[in-house]
Amino acid sequence: MPSLKELKARKRSDYPYILEYRTRWSDNDMYAHMNNAMYTVLYDAVINTYLVEACGMRPHHSPQHALVVHSQIDYFGSISFPKVAELALRVARLGHSSVTYDVALFEKGVDEVRSVGEFVQVFVERETGRPNAATGMSAAYKEGLEKILVQGDAKSKI
Amino acid sequence: MPSLKELKARKRSDYPYILEYRTRWSDNDMYAHMNNAMYTVLYDAVINTYLVEACGMRPHHSPQHALVVHSQIDYFGSISFPKVAELALRVARLGHSSVTYDVALFEKGVDEVRSVGEFVQVFVERETGRPNAATGMSAAYKEGLEKILVQGDAKSKI
Amino acid sequence: MPSLKELKARKRSDYPYILEYRTRWSDNDMYAHMNNAMYTVLYDAVINTYLVEACGMRPHHSPQHALVVHSQIDYFGSISFPKVAELALRVARLGHSSVTYDVALFEKGVDEVRSVGEFVQVFVERETGRPNAATGMSAAYKEGLEKILVQGDAKSKI
Amino acid sequence: MPSLKELKARKRSDYPYILEYRTRWSDNDMYAHMNNAMYTVLYDAVINTYLVEACGMRPHHSPQHALVVHSQIDYFGSISFPKVAELALRVARLGHSSVTYDVALFEKGVDEVRSVGEFVQVFVERETGRPNAATGMSAAYKEGLEKILVQGDAKSKI
Repeated sequence: MPSLKELKARKRSDYPYILEYRTRWSDNDMYAHMNNAMYTVLYDAVINTYLVEACGMRPHHSPQHALVVHSQIDYFGSISFPKVAELALRVARLGHSSVTYDVALFEKGVDEVRSVGEFVQVFVERETGRPNAATGMSAAYKEGLEKILVQGDAKSKI
Repeated sequence: MPSLKELKARKRSDYPYILEYRTRWSDNDMYAHMNNAMYTVLYDAVINTYLVEACGMRPHHSPQHALVVHSQIDYFGSISFPKVAELALRVARLGHSSVTYDVALFEKGVDEVRSVGEFVQVFVERETGRPNAATGMSAAYKEGLEKILVQGDAKSKI
Repeated sequence: MPSLKELKARKRSDYPYILEYRTRWSDNDMYAHMNNAMYTVLYDAVINTYLVEACGMRPHHSPQHALVVHSQIDYFGSISFPKVAELALRVARLGHSSVTYDVALFEKGVDEVRSVGEFVQVFVERETGRPNAATGMSAAYKEGLEKILVQGDAKSKI
Repeated sequence: MPSLKELKARKRSDYPYILEYRTRWSDNDMYAHMNNAMYTVLYDAVINTYLVEACGMRPHHSPQHALVVHSQIDYFGSISFPKVAELALRVARLGHSSVTYDVALFEKGVDEVRSVGEFVQVFVERETGRPNAATGMSAAYKEGLEKILVQGDAKSKI
């Protein structure tokens, strides 16, 4: 696990896939900054966009889809509507049926990272809702995710 | 009131202010298209962005802010994650203390409008939560909103 | 259409179906009251709960499901987290393939209605995404919705 | 840190504060269960409700309020609209200016826990946005949170 100091030092160039998301009025809470739950919404958005665009996922039709089994987020600074957020994504570990993503949120025009997170997904069969122990994640997911795998030496066993 | 046929014929060029919003995974509902409540979220977002960017609104500090008193939306087609939405805004009527917005949602790359809405806001004093009957909305709001007023002949009396 | 004065006079006893929804921190916006878009979220929630519980709707399996084609809301007062909202529902008009709902939001412990809305749904076939012109909405929807139809004299032609 | 096995064994009786939240149509995602981001929304809701109801927090007025600096969630099972969720809360560690919450989500009528989370908040001064190094969190927060402190032996140094 990286230290908090390492996480706070994350830069856009550490991530191969970045998308812009305009914040919405309803993202802000009573403290006039984006509610912490909205970071999860945006991390979830960039991950699933990558699965659709780069791995061929069709949420209602693909024989396999991905379920989040763990998420964690550290918050270093805030972003406020109507600023634009930049969501950064890479794969940290690729297992037989699971993937661990490193995600980060930047504010457009600001160097320092606002928040860093880790999400773990397991690919399950539509029919059973369980991973396929024999074959693991399908080839299209594996190939797409390998393209943004940054720490290739780490392999999980899930 | 415009007819449904007129609303369905709305084009991007009918609106002076347009912003792109990337849809999020959580915008879609079980029917695999954007939930109808998210249209309200996005209409609210583009309106408040305009108030901040073009009218100098500071939500936690301005002596006046705007409350929605009426909203209505017609839905002609759907948009699905991860498509990009274009939110279009104009002012239809400008009253003493109130404003009526015409809003529309387009899908990037698609001609036909997906949805058209009307939102009415009343500008209230922070101190009282009521409109200022004497002076109405502040000059900065009035000037900013007049810039995107399309049907200048209509004046409400609210 | 009822007048604003009539809408503001709505009481809980005007509605045959009422559910409690606890508000959430993220429902409130920067003005420390529930964001207007969350009323749509809650109106949508009570309508779909009724379709599931009283009309046998199974969102991913039923041969027909309902799409919102029009919504409108009037806001008379606000509710703030962590108050409990009471969502009230009745059917105002029942057509061949469409239904018009009257909805209202009350704050638990407060007499005056906070907001009143109207939602129109069309029942479409899962296969085609279009209404069934011959048979209209399925019998289970019709029977369930008739139970909360308050103004039985009004029939739409959609 | 408790093991995953320990987390999966959590029961309602492990938590002194439990609130019911009715799920909403928009909580479900395309996989017909509650989107993972909505767990964060609900965990955030129960924590802030406790701060308001039991610790006297007034979000727009209190001289101190709480910011989330870390969150993590493990997901063991899913819940689907229109089921009712039970949100369970306890304090695991109470520091000078910070608090660590244990939270859990149950489905009404089901024994097994669906998800367990940990949230860390820091109490900051409204004026400065920083913790008060001298006095730490105010007495009302400390007293309220101690009432649901379950592992009294653990003290953080934040």
